[in-house]
Amino acid sequence: MRRIVFVLVAVVALAGVVAYMAPASGQDDGEAAPIFGVKIPPGYRDWRLISVAREEGSLNDIRAILGNDVAINAYREGKLPFPDGTIIARIAWSYDASEENNKVFGRPQSFVAGPPKNGVQFMVKDSKKYASTGGWGFAQFDDGKPADEAVLKTCFPCHQAIKARDLVFTRYAP
Amino acid sequence: MRRIVFVLVAVVALAGVVAYMAPASGQDDGEAAPIFGVKIPPGYRDWRLISVAREEGSLNDIRAILGNDVAINAYREGKLPFPDGTIIARIAWSYDASEENNKVFGRPQSFVAGPPKNGVQFMVKDSKKYASTGGWGFAQFDDGKPADEAVLKTCFPCHQAIKARDLVFTRYAP
Repeated sequence: MRRIVFVLVAVVALAGVVAYMAPASGQDDGEAAPIFGVKIPPGYRDWRLISVAREEGSLNDIRAILGNDVAINAYREGKLPFPDGTIIARIAWSYDASEENNKVFGRPQSFVAGPPKNGVQFMVKDSKKYASTGGWGFAQFDDGKPADEAVLKTCFPCHQAIKARDLVFTRYAP
Repeated sequence: MRRIVFVLVAVVALAGVVAYMAPASGQDDGEAAPIFGVKIPPGYRDWRLISVAREEGSLNDIRAILGNDVAINAYREGKLPFPDGTIIARIAWSYDASEENNKVFGRPQSFVAGPPKNGVQFMVKDSKKYASTGGWGFAQFDDGKPADEAVLKTCFPCHQAIKARDLVFTRYAP
């Protein structure tokens, strides 16, 4: 009897663990972006760094481009086109002068990442699913909420300009 | 006899594996930086992102600050002082206008990471070993070669200005 109880407890515990795991798709249960149906990939903030950049003008941010393992391996091996399963994430923050750093440097020269800005963007490679947009699905989330269709419709026409690098602007920073 | 041969082969193979492993310190066999004896930590380019920044003036770079697991956990948990074993890496690149991006944007606004610049820097926390410099060891490597003593002597006096955050300037970018 004691043994049956133990087995039952183990089964229930295991079911709990399985229920708590991320779905097999590797994406979480948040709302999907329109058109491409991309969700925020869980754990993307832990991905490795591809490069950094700064946009002036109306964007006025400083940004980091991260990649999942498929993306990082493709970049390092110079593999083009990017293989299916590649996901590239673009995080951006307010471009803030750092008074605290400048005081130490003794001159105004230091700019750091402030609060998140301009949403988080993803490019997801699936050459079949997204065949009509060069094999890429595009998504943007502002405070976790997907941007609307009108915003996402602007992604592909712009990224097409960089066809020679499989629609990906960012180069790997060694 | 066959069994003895198998065991011998296994022992020799294991010895090979052990010989090939990184030293227990988690640092590679490159030249150590003066004063603090810090070596380039293997695999640091795979570490997770703490934040990004831009320095104008004579540095004129765009940079990423990465942390090993101990560093990332301490940042996310708001743990101060940073625990022993924390390593923070600063990589920097030339701050280059991107003609290719600007053409697509239709205006000059985009700056990207060019070739590596201003070396790679590390802060290593070991409260006993580096007791006389606030618990931190400092290192800089230019093309893999450690910077000289005169350069490293400037680190601690400057970082002391940020005593309230355990001598670490960079804040975590969410």
